[in-house]
Amino acid sequence: MNALGKHLLLELKGCDKEVLDDLSFLRDALLAAASECGATILGESFHRFSPQGVSGVVIIAESHLFIHTWPEYGYAAADIFTCGDSVQPERAAQVLTRKLSSKNHSMVEMRRGILDTE
Amino acid sequence: MNALGKHLLLELKGCDKEVLDDLSFLRDALLAAASECGATILGESFHRFSPQGVSGVVIIAESHLFIHTWPEYGYAAADIFTCGDSVQPERAAQVLTRKLSSKNHSMVEMRRGILDTE
Repeated sequence: MNALGKHLLLELKGCDKEVLDDLSFLRDALLAAASECGATILGESFHRFSPQGVSGVVIIAESHLFIHTWPEYGYAAADIFTCGDSVQPERAAQVLTRKLSSKNHSMVEMRRGILDTE
Repeated sequence: MNALGKHLLLELKGCDKEVLDDLSFLRDALLAAASECGATILGESFHRFSPQGVSGVVIIAESHLFIHTWPEYGYAAADIFTCGDSVQPERAAQVLTRKLSSKNHSMVEMRRGILDTE
């Protein structure tokens, strides 16, 4: 059953709280995750919220990665959406999980765009 | 059971193919969806691919909306990720479904950040 896109939804709990509030660190982490899975980076947008929390997205030729963090809970939601066979989104998931020092994480894999075509 | 975020994953099939390749239209549609659900828009990034297809994201104070389109299949994947009670992501989903003239659509709702806190 072919799908156009693979979408990994990461729940990252028990993360390092300081890291979750550090825009620069998170930007580097998301860009590293994109690079290590073989993606071509096209653009990015990051925002830090008051009093805490960061949202960021990296647009790649193969779709996108995003992260939203709640430092007060040690929690981050991260998604890796890719299309094509040239990238390995699982590697990006491993990079993010490791960099955020998540002690309790889970992942859901969704197939997007399952069509009635070969 | 409380969750920090509500994440709607829209599968939009049978869409108007011309619209799916029109960056300007899709940008307007995503911004309209964000506005109509009550979100505060912080940033955006859109890219058109060769020979076809558009990726776009709108960052909102309450998280994000994105869309990826495959005009050749009349298909778009759209996500609406929101946190807090001040926004109505279902309204954004309705706006996008209508604007893209999707004749065959489905939606999965994910709760993100279900924590062991009150």
